[in-house]
Amino acid sequence: MELVSQSQCFGGVQAVYSHSSETCQCKMTFGLFLPPQAKDRKVPLLWFLAGLTCTHENAMTKAGLQNYAAEHGLALVFPDTSPRGDGVLDDEAYDLGQGAGFYVNATRDPWGRHFRMYDYIVEELPALLVEALPLNGVFGITGHSMGGHGALTIAFRNPDKFRSVSAFAPIVNPTRSDWGRKQFSAYLGDDEAVWGNYDACLLLAEHGWKGEILIDQGADDQFLDLLRPEAIAGQIAGARQPGIVRMQPGYDHSYYFIASFGADHVRWHAKRLNAL
Amino acid sequence: MELVSQSQCFGGVQAVYSHSSETCQCKMTFGLFLPPQAKDRKVPLLWFLAGLTCTHENAMTKAGLQNYAAEHGLALVFPDTSPRGDGVLDDEAYDLGQGAGFYVNATRDPWGRHFRMYDYIVEELPALLVEALPLNGVFGITGHSMGGHGALTIAFRNPDKFRSVSAFAPIVNPTRSDWGRKQFSAYLGDDEAVWGNYDACLLLAEHGWKGEILIDQGADDQFLDLLRPEAIAGQIAGARQPGIVRMQPGYDHSYYFIASFGADHVRWHAKRLNAL
Repeated sequence: MELVSQSQCFGGVQAVYSHSSETCQCKMTFGLFLPPQAKDRKVPLLWFLAGLTCTHENAMTKAGLQNYAAEHGLALVFPDTSPRGDGVLDDEAYDLGQGAGFYVNATRDPWGRHFRMYDYIVEELPALLVEALPLNGVFGITGHSMGGHGALTIAFRNPDKFRSVSAFAPIVNPTRSDWGRKQFSAYLGDDEAVWGNYDACLLLAEHGWKGEILIDQGADDQFLDLLRPEAIAGQIAGARQPGIVRMQPGYDHSYYFIASFGADHVRWHAKRLNAL
Repeated sequence: MELVSQSQCFGGVQAVYSHSSETCQCKMTFGLFLPPQAKDRKVPLLWFLAGLTCTHENAMTKAGLQNYAAEHGLALVFPDTSPRGDGVLDDEAYDLGQGAGFYVNATRDPWGRHFRMYDYIVEELPALLVEALPLNGVFGITGHSMGGHGALTIAFRNPDKFRSVSAFAPIVNPTRSDWGRKQFSAYLGDDEAVWGNYDACLLLAEHGWKGEILIDQGADDQFLDLLRPEAIAGQIAGARQPGIVRMQPGYDHSYYFIASFGADHVRWHAKRLNAL
């Protein structure tokens, strides 16, 4: 783990690290915020998975979450959204290849060599972070858009690893969306049964979720047809699953939307992650 | 005034506008945040002047001020830092020409044609904003680095126009800094007596300031030699000028520093701008 930069921020430290990833077979970069409380004790960690076209930097600089994380004593990690670099396959489209890992383990060539973001987020990066930093191993997870999809699916499949989950404008039903079908076809091949491992609605139907779920969705989001919030809202209500889906009037898909409700999400996770 | 984009943000609206500037003889772009209170009444406006290399976008997306502005009922404006575009002169250096207007009226060719940021901020843009938007004409001003220099000098020269002033890591004594001497020489010529019109320390010595001044400065700022906080700290104390200069341990020159103390500055201005 190599320190790329660090700045004091709300009394804590916002750092950027890079490391050589065995899972993704390339150098990966991530942002890591440690709150002031981490000087004295190990703290819980909230994962923020970003959306299409983002790097580790977007949410780190624009979502404004450090303020609340410092208040509540949570660390934050901002992973990249895909493997990256000259040696990594890419596609001309914004929604495939670099910047568009979709948090899956690609099984289909030529993507399979590098595009293993699911294992990277679930296995490799957690181990690295807990080893190197003052973290107590208690995790929550959230994310935006493609990263909201990542947060929900990763939590639902790993309830022992993630104690709390929320999402901002998540892609909730990718097997039925052009943000999903195209990528799953490329990364996973044509057997749609496999795709279900990465669809929040299908996973929730199969496994449920041990706790509550918080989802915020802008009612004026320009991508509502691709995000399909009605699918998970119906799923949660239909299954009597504890959870809150808030359609927020006037908000679009931008980081201004995330910033506006960032305090609520950090508090949501803090309540659960700081519980003994 | 042409609307470029708008997003709801903390219950208010973060917009970007462009307009044809008579002062700068080019198209200019700025960010404008209206708090939710502006739906019902005219509100005060806090100016945020950005630093070297910035556009209208940096502070708008990274400083996190909208949260507090929404709470206190202040509008925010994020002007660009220079004239810009293909038809506008530039220099290869990051600290001269586009992105480096230094908030002066250039009098020396070839800069004089476009680089008139002082008049743009003091005259043209205020008139445009008050005409077009629900603003009550009560202004405060702040800024970062080169923009902190702009905020202090513009306030000190226009006490009837700006009711409150603060700055983050400002260049306070540009006539004695390489962030100043180079640019003033290019924009204003070699008569150093003229430069004093754009030096916060010299202006404060000459005119004082009617109210209090708030300055935050990171003690670990990588540019302390160029910013020279000791000059204005000494000036304020020596002149018995009401004001607060805070050397903040551990903070550098980044937007994480601005974000960390943004709440304090917005509150500082709100207290003065919302007073009857």
